[in-house]
Amino acid sequence: MIVIIKREATEEKISALAEWLKTQGIKPDISRGKDITIMGLVGDVNGIDTDLLGALDIVESIKRISEPYKAANRKFHPEDTVVTLDNGTKIGGDNFVFMAGPCSVESEEQIIEVASRVKKAGAQLLRGGAFKPRTSPYAFQGMGAEGIRLLMEAKAATGLPVVTELMDIKDIDLFDGVDIIQIGARNMQNFEMLKELGQVKKPILLKRGFSNTIQEWLMSAEYIISGGNRDVILCERGIRTFETATRNTLDITSVPVIHKVSHLPIIVDVSHSTGHADLVESASLASTAAGANGLMIEVHNDPAHAKCDGQQSITPDQFDIISEKVMKVRSAIL
Amino acid sequence: MIVIIKREATEEKISALAEWLKTQGIKPDISRGKDITIMGLVGDVNGIDTDLLGALDIVESIKRISEPYKAANRKFHPEDTVVTLDNGTKIGGDNFVFMAGPCSVESEEQIIEVASRVKKAGAQLLRGGAFKPRTSPYAFQGMGAEGIRLLMEAKAATGLPVVTELMDIKDIDLFDGVDIIQIGARNMQNFEMLKELGQVKKPILLKRGFSNTIQEWLMSAEYIISGGNRDVILCERGIRTFETATRNTLDITSVPVIHKVSHLPIIVDVSHSTGHADLVESASLASTAAGANGLMIEVHNDPAHAKCDGQQSITPDQFDIISEKVMKVRSAIL
Amino acid sequence: MIVIIKREATEEKISALAEWLKTQGIKPDISRGKDITIMGLVGDVNGIDTDLLGALDIVESIKRISEPYKAANRKFHPEDTVVTLDNGTKIGGDNFVFMAGPCSVESEEQIIEVASRVKKAGAQLLRGGAFKPRTSPYAFQGMGAEGIRLLMEAKAATGLPVVTELMDIKDIDLFDGVDIIQIGARNMQNFEMLKELGQVKKPILLKRGFSNTIQEWLMSAEYIISGGNRDVILCERGIRTFETATRNTLDITSVPVIHKVSHLPIIVDVSHSTGHADLVESASLASTAAGANGLMIEVHNDPAHAKCDGQQSITPDQFDIISEKVMKVRSAIL
Amino acid sequence: MIVIIKREATEEKISALAEWLKTQGIKPDISRGKDITIMGLVGDVNGIDTDLLGALDIVESIKRISEPYKAANRKFHPEDTVVTLDNGTKIGGDNFVFMAGPCSVESEEQIIEVASRVKKAGAQLLRGGAFKPRTSPYAFQGMGAEGIRLLMEAKAATGLPVVTELMDIKDIDLFDGVDIIQIGARNMQNFEMLKELGQVKKPILLKRGFSNTIQEWLMSAEYIISGGNRDVILCERGIRTFETATRNTLDITSVPVIHKVSHLPIIVDVSHSTGHADLVESASLASTAAGANGLMIEVHNDPAHAKCDGQQSITPDQFDIISEKVMKVRSAIL
Repeated sequence: MIVIIKREATEEKISALAEWLKTQGIKPDISRGKDITIMGLVGDVNGIDTDLLGALDIVESIKRISEPYKAANRKFHPEDTVVTLDNGTKIGGDNFVFMAGPCSVESEEQIIEVASRVKKAGAQLLRGGAFKPRTSPYAFQGMGAEGIRLLMEAKAATGLPVVTELMDIKDIDLFDGVDIIQIGARNMQNFEMLKELGQVKKPILLKRGFSNTIQEWLMSAEYIISGGNRDVILCERGIRTFETATRNTLDITSVPVIHKVSHLPIIVDVSHSTGHADLVESASLASTAAGANGLMIEVHNDPAHAKCDGQQSITPDQFDIISEKVMKVRSAIL
Repeated sequence: MIVIIKREATEEKISALAEWLKTQGIKPDISRGKDITIMGLVGDVNGIDTDLLGALDIVESIKRISEPYKAANRKFHPEDTVVTLDNGTKIGGDNFVFMAGPCSVESEEQIIEVASRVKKAGAQLLRGGAFKPRTSPYAFQGMGAEGIRLLMEAKAATGLPVVTELMDIKDIDLFDGVDIIQIGARNMQNFEMLKELGQVKKPILLKRGFSNTIQEWLMSAEYIISGGNRDVILCERGIRTFETATRNTLDITSVPVIHKVSHLPIIVDVSHSTGHADLVESASLASTAAGANGLMIEVHNDPAHAKCDGQQSITPDQFDIISEKVMKVRSAIL
Repeated sequence: MIVIIKREATEEKISALAEWLKTQGIKPDISRGKDITIMGLVGDVNGIDTDLLGALDIVESIKRISEPYKAANRKFHPEDTVVTLDNGTKIGGDNFVFMAGPCSVESEEQIIEVASRVKKAGAQLLRGGAFKPRTSPYAFQGMGAEGIRLLMEAKAATGLPVVTELMDIKDIDLFDGVDIIQIGARNMQNFEMLKELGQVKKPILLKRGFSNTIQEWLMSAEYIISGGNRDVILCERGIRTFETATRNTLDITSVPVIHKVSHLPIIVDVSHSTGHADLVESASLASTAAGANGLMIEVHNDPAHAKCDGQQSITPDQFDIISEKVMKVRSAIL
Repeated sequence: MIVIIKREATEEKISALAEWLKTQGIKPDISRGKDITIMGLVGDVNGIDTDLLGALDIVESIKRISEPYKAANRKFHPEDTVVTLDNGTKIGGDNFVFMAGPCSVESEEQIIEVASRVKKAGAQLLRGGAFKPRTSPYAFQGMGAEGIRLLMEAKAATGLPVVTELMDIKDIDLFDGVDIIQIGARNMQNFEMLKELGQVKKPILLKRGFSNTIQEWLMSAEYIISGGNRDVILCERGIRTFETATRNTLDITSVPVIHKVSHLPIIVDVSHSTGHADLVESASLASTAAGANGLMIEVHNDPAHAKCDGQQSITPDQFDIISEKVMKVRSAIL
């Protein structure tokens, strides 16, 4: 951490700050220039409150030079995190998974049909929403507990592990049979929930908030890991920009950036990031080529009558084609 | 609502859609052109699922022509909402309020001193954080229940009503003596919480999410109002943009936009939107001139040692000066 | 085009507008509802001034339903545009090209060495900046005319066609031997220049402005094509967002969007869009998988001493590896 | 400037870098920590190429600690720049001006009528576009030279100095009688043009690019000032964000930020930044309260038939009211 000292700061005040830092176990190195004085803080600065420091009279600004996350940081954990599900499915490292299924669970028939179809086409996990975050209070809010029950039936019928979204920690007991708990973009900085997820004994799929930086995303993962749950899977789902041709802007480069700075697996949700069924194939191939550890794709047996997000869902037939092409690209980059 | 029909759609399919719409109580007017066919839906379209409609084979796109919010919409409620607190303080309409106080409650001495000072300078409410949303799990998370207790002491000592943030609905019982419950930017789309706030018998100060549109903000207010709680106060607190000179970008024009489309009061948080104490005065004067119903300002007796956000806090002495100037501008526009 | 009429509009005013539209060759279809009246304009609406229409008393808003570009629109030109250079190199359709070379031309030795190396690794074009747009007036501004001369030497030595940036139309005569004129992001909406480029008899590589929508980008292409020059190649180079981990955010989905709505070729500049040499490989593979018609990559024989953008340049050895992997991904998707 | 050295850098390489910096007149201070080594560069670092430095093997990153602009920097020129026009009108410092008039010059009658009306209501300058930047090649492009001639007639008739946009430096001779040359948002980083404007002997109104940071804006001003023309007036006109309720997002805080870091005057274009006539009043009052040195407002005698931007133009009658209110707010803050 670097502290830029104001030009007009007195020697006395600078010394006082240096002394105080030493009491905190920090060694300050002071460089004096004509226009500027710099104090380099070397040592463990995680305990230093940057807001406090930045508000001091004599401080012009502060610059961090190391990342504020530790548990999620590849520097301190060079090995890839690999999450293993109960049925042996692995996520992370050299493994590649498809999480496919409908936006919302709508009926037993629907979820079992889609589950069977995507399994046949090579999917390792079934996705499906029971609790649905909707901008409008008047829109379909999901089947709730009944939706979870139907997902469990689909799991029993096909053997596919299930990933589904939790919107309120009070519903956690319903998620007993769920294999991966998904936390949606809008809850990425619901810090009270993140703290509780640190206590949960299940993998967490943490979606990126639609306007959160990669660093903020990793800080949210840090809440979960530092709370005791190491099985965090990141999920890029597009960010909000000025462009309106797509529902969100898929930040494809977040994939190699995450691999560089963190050991956590990263999945790309190619349906929400594009918002249009006819862009899903390109987004899938690109995400795979960029090195994603897997894809989350909305597949519906009847997209035109899906209860939500029908515009971005593909059919099982389209999924067959896309998954085959994805595996070809995957082979090409290995 | 307008449905744009694809050029290649058959007459049969268009008629089938029209028939189905009629069964939903909607009267579709069809305009046929050389390149395009348009279906205008007139009637109550709130029950129509736009995702479903948009996913149909023959539909190119859908355009809304009326706002999706009703309860928060000025068209249906032309009169300003005025929220009245227990001590008679009014927010909204022609009233103007200052909500001032420290970012975080830190001690009894601190909160009572700041409360007394801001009251003397004309503040109508005391703000202060007990539960603090922090990006980092390693940062100070607020005093919690003890912070609420200290706020109650400050209220008892000064008579100032209190506004403070609720981060988890499970803590609601602690908020008995609190006058306005603040919902932070990161929880603006925590829909499960919004539903529960609809049942609460207290005014809600709903901060705008830092990347949410004005329409999404009003849809979140709609969750609370349609749940039964009409006392919603909006709070603009800056949005996330590419500019880094300020912590956020104060979207000043949201103030007249809200007044145009909604009847709810709007307050501006001039501290978070700027992030720098030396910009607070200009932001306060601008927000007042733009027609805000009040200001939320961080005031700390010792900003350099504030436990969070010290950089953006002003001193009680600065608050004296700013509040006086604000009232001059307020007079100038009435 | 759809005109939403205000609720309070009189029949008289609506009729007057309808009459006037008819004189413009437009057939207006009027749909009247309880809350809203819609006028659908069918016919050739390109001559209609939407600003004028939108400002009328009785008009609430206007919604376009067809794209404002014609010449660049795939609807009217379903076949891919393929640009053919003097030496027979083709860009667009099923062809794939690498445009590689240094950010700036620095010396005869440098440009010839890099040109030879990238040619050997399979590049079809040499890129290199002679005129450099720089944020700071104090930064290196490029070698100018002398840089163009050196590019011509490298072209003579290797046979590689050359693409280089034009910043001011007054320099056009220097570009006689240049094969493709590059227009930078900052000049994408320099409309006076675009008009003049319509007269030029050379292919134009039109970079996307860093905050321009895909539609604005195509409108700028429209300026050039409607001026008489059909050889426009689009180049995605990243957009400006809130994320700071990368120099820009590569909008990967712009590739399939462009292929859907336009017939023009699209290239991805993987160096500017990422800004870091160690992200170039992933971005290259992703862009290829997404269906780009080629890549623009900064390659420097000594990135650590490059006069500009050294951080994002790769070495010729790295280019060898990346181009090989790219061709594998290219094969996988064909 | 601070150079962060990679952990794995050898002593030898660090020393070599330090030696080289000394030859450039820079004194490097080295602070060594457990995890990190920092090199503080004190001295005149403007000659140092940060791209070059950042690309070195041993360098992790570079952080600037002083602004890259000098001529536009208040630190080096504490006094406000005041631009004086031929008729004595002053812009900057304690002066306040209205620049009012139509988006486009359309006819002699129109421009003279509007000029007379806004003069009577207190405007000090007439604005009006002769050369119009338009996204679409099919939209009205302005009257060009004839428009300038009509502006000169309006100036002769009313005595109002004129501000109008220059889109191409080749037209500069037409601007002889123009008092302030406006450079539009899309040309803010047309560096070749900026260089030429440094030679011009007229004040330049430099609009902020719609996605440019305040620092980039000041760097563009720096091009003009360092070229020899000190009379630069900045004009905030809204930035591009995700919000669609307004045409752009007025970055109101740019006003106090500019006053803090620069000595140049700053004007706010309240018409383009909002895009709606009914938001112009609030934006005008807010900008004035924020400390702007003046306002640019589109006023049209018949907005419903304005050839461009009719939606955001106000009438002369509305201007009367707004200008009066603005002056009241102006008085309140002095």
